[in-house]
Amino acid sequence: MTLSHLSKQIENKKSFLCVGLDIDLEKIPTHLLQEEDPIFAFSKAIIEATHDLCVAYKPNTAFFEAYGVKGWMALEKTINYLNKNYPDHFTIADAKRGDIGNTSTRYAKAFFEDLNFDSVTIAPYMGKDSVEPFLEFEDKFAILLALTSNQGAFDFQTKTVDEKPLYQEVLKTASQYKNSDRLMYVVGATKAEYLKEIRQIVPNSFLLVPGVGAQGGSLEEVVTYGKNDQVGLLVNSSRSIIYASNDTDFADAARAKALELQKQMAELI
Amino acid sequence: MTLSHLSKQIENKKSFLCVGLDIDLEKIPTHLLQEEDPIFAFSKAIIEATHDLCVAYKPNTAFFEAYGVKGWMALEKTINYLNKNYPDHFTIADAKRGDIGNTSTRYAKAFFEDLNFDSVTIAPYMGKDSVEPFLEFEDKFAILLALTSNQGAFDFQTKTVDEKPLYQEVLKTASQYKNSDRLMYVVGATKAEYLKEIRQIVPNSFLLVPGVGAQGGSLEEVVTYGKNDQVGLLVNSSRSIIYASNDTDFADAARAKALELQKQMAELI
Repeated sequence: MTLSHLSKQIENKKSFLCVGLDIDLEKIPTHLLQEEDPIFAFSKAIIEATHDLCVAYKPNTAFFEAYGVKGWMALEKTINYLNKNYPDHFTIADAKRGDIGNTSTRYAKAFFEDLNFDSVTIAPYMGKDSVEPFLEFEDKFAILLALTSNQGAFDFQTKTVDEKPLYQEVLKTASQYKNSDRLMYVVGATKAEYLKEIRQIVPNSFLLVPGVGAQGGSLEEVVTYGKNDQVGLLVNSSRSIIYASNDTDFADAARAKALELQKQMAELI
Repeated sequence: MTLSHLSKQIENKKSFLCVGLDIDLEKIPTHLLQEEDPIFAFSKAIIEATHDLCVAYKPNTAFFEAYGVKGWMALEKTINYLNKNYPDHFTIADAKRGDIGNTSTRYAKAFFEDLNFDSVTIAPYMGKDSVEPFLEFEDKFAILLALTSNQGAFDFQTKTVDEKPLYQEVLKTASQYKNSDRLMYVVGATKAEYLKEIRQIVPNSFLLVPGVGAQGGSLEEVVTYGKNDQVGLLVNSSRSIIYASNDTDFADAARAKALELQKQMAELI
């Protein structure tokens, strides 16, 4: 997918919502456990209930991998279902990968070619030759962890390096990598006040913002400090949407929660 | 596996060799491609040819994932084969995972329970609550990236934080995490001279050292600067062993290369 196509979807839908698919068999409605593939049945129902309200889906690969081969098959079915039925949605494999060059190339091929995701989240610690292999694929994107929404972000990401926090060093360095126009960045909504400075470093890049909802981040603050001329934001919500109810009305409840967020977004952009 | 059992294996075999299984269908002998599962056929042959010379195997999950469900099944078969036939070998899922708390827990369960690996490699960038979920499993280990063997390590890992390089900050901080006795650390052999200072920070921890062989690191330097009283090293070699030949003699060639390394190790410890 091209960036302009993604921005067009945001404009049309008045939404920059990304629905996170963190699918946990212990949390989904019990009646789905009788399905042949409960993980995919749940994914599909959530997608059907929310697709007109969001512009992106983000399956978290950990939750699929936790179920081994069965989980991996459910991930394949989910991305294939999205690509077939909702090709205008931006798809994110939330995998947080990163390895030395030839191994990163393997990961990139797995997610971009084998599974045909539009993007994959990656970790910065191993530097340039772990990131650049992900940037070699046309119309595919790598979303680099910069400042994450969890408490542990303060262990290293906010430590001072060359008179600035490490996450800013990551943004500055990565924005010089080859094909860095194919980079987006993860910035947690729980640290929205940091978005102002982040926008000075990467004014034109898309930011993937987790942490609104269950983790407590404010949508309004994210927009105030993080929006650029093309919006440039994908705000993710996972648990507060997909587990809005764990009864037979789960899909309606997920839709209601997604609609609530979409309406807030429409007012803010 | 317990640490004392691993140290005992090292003592018995006079080897601290870890064989990395980075299995690439474009590099394995072409006659294996006729097998029903060429990836597993190759893994199994390498294991059979080298098991008495090494104490650990490290499948790199990227190479398996690159082949989708088929690859994931080959990974399952490989770890099951090891656990059944060679339970004294320490097994490492080289996955470089790391995510917020509940997601890290998913990854930990996937690798420690579902697949029954002894250990998994993880990335430090997201901090404490991304690492500690991996440390809750008895006799299981998380191997944290500290100083990696690639060129990109100089982008962030060696940058100065609080008057020391970031990788030392990672070592100091992580060694204070709960259950940090279940942590090991990745330190690249291409930066063996750094091992002296690293040993002052984590004198008792096992270090997983990639980069000997194809990447150019020196085994002798690694031992000089990195060995502790219990050896405390696992030196990994992947490509130089498993792709020593790509003809029908590949297993013999892999054995010859592993034997060469084991002999050097026997002399050094």
